[in-house]
Amino acid sequence: MMGIMGRWQSGASGRLKDAALGLFLTQGYDGTTVAEIAAAAGLTERTFFRHFADKREVLFVDQDEFERVFLSGLPERAEDPMTMIVGVLDGAAALFPEDRRPWSRARRSVIAANEALQERELLKMSSLAMALTRALTARGVDAASAALAAETCVTVFRTSFALWVAEGERRTFTEIQNAVLARLQALLT
Amino acid sequence: MMGIMGRWQSGASGRLKDAALGLFLTQGYDGTTVAEIAAAAGLTERTFFRHFADKREVLFVDQDEFERVFLSGLPERAEDPMTMIVGVLDGAAALFPEDRRPWSRARRSVIAANEALQERELLKMSSLAMALTRALTARGVDAASAALAAETCVTVFRTSFALWVAEGERRTFTEIQNAVLARLQALLT
Repeated sequence: MMGIMGRWQSGASGRLKDAALGLFLTQGYDGTTVAEIAAAAGLTERTFFRHFADKREVLFVDQDEFERVFLSGLPERAEDPMTMIVGVLDGAAALFPEDRRPWSRARRSVIAANEALQERELLKMSSLAMALTRALTARGVDAASAALAAETCVTVFRTSFALWVAEGERRTFTEIQNAVLARLQALLT
Repeated sequence: MMGIMGRWQSGASGRLKDAALGLFLTQGYDGTTVAEIAAAAGLTERTFFRHFADKREVLFVDQDEFERVFLSGLPERAEDPMTMIVGVLDGAAALFPEDRRPWSRARRSVIAANEALQERELLKMSSLAMALTRALTARGVDAASAALAAETCVTVFRTSFALWVAEGERRTFTEIQNAVLARLQALLT
């Protein structure tokens, strides 16, 4: 069976994520045990814990990679702030190809149903904004401008992500993000 | 003794807050007990718990009032988004008159030293952005624009707050906030 993960990940880790997300969707996050996830993936609990520290990490394990790729679009050298923001947003969009949309949509739905997971997601976004602020500061941007640009990037990204995973949405992540950035620029003038 | 609270609050609640903040600053948040706070304020623990659910609430008890005042600057009827953003920011600035700066500065320093308090503060800001998003949506703004405008308001507010409480800063909250908003507009063009 082709799971929610689609083609973008495979191996034991991918199978476990796929099994977990399917169970979270059908029987709830709190109502799912690691034993059930492992069994649904045809693997042992021991294998589960080789890949994930706990059940929650199935949904958040990619954080380091996420931050790395998110920041990878930032130009090496200082440019004008808008060029840097656009570079970061383009890098972020690369994380969300079409074949990831079903997984992202399912993950979003699981997180939306659980307050503790929402808080974890919020902290992840805050951590991302802080990493980006540091990266901008390291390129000579003053602290207040760096924080503003970083928070704005994350706001545009989050808003775009919410639209991208909405039912029936067909535009690519890049198309949505360009439209959201343009809308923000229009709002502020 | 005129405490950190200055003139802007008084009564048992104000004395407890003042005593708590002083202890948090000198012996750390984790190293301070409710019994010590009550004793330092010359009150009983029972009185403490009439005003605050727990030690942490000393720093966060004003959340409802904070959100209410924050939103009070929003025009009753729909205006163009920029007018609504400026209205909200002006309302927010009214929460931070000069005589509150020492308390805010001390509170900020206590929170910066404690990860759990930082998370609590982050959730407070997220709750604020969601309340503002709902208020904008209720005035007919589409969901994505409302979220963008609300998050942007909170970003400008947070950045301004960090500058306002910085050592040596003398500009008013309003002056700082106007400068931060102008900087954001410049960043995005």
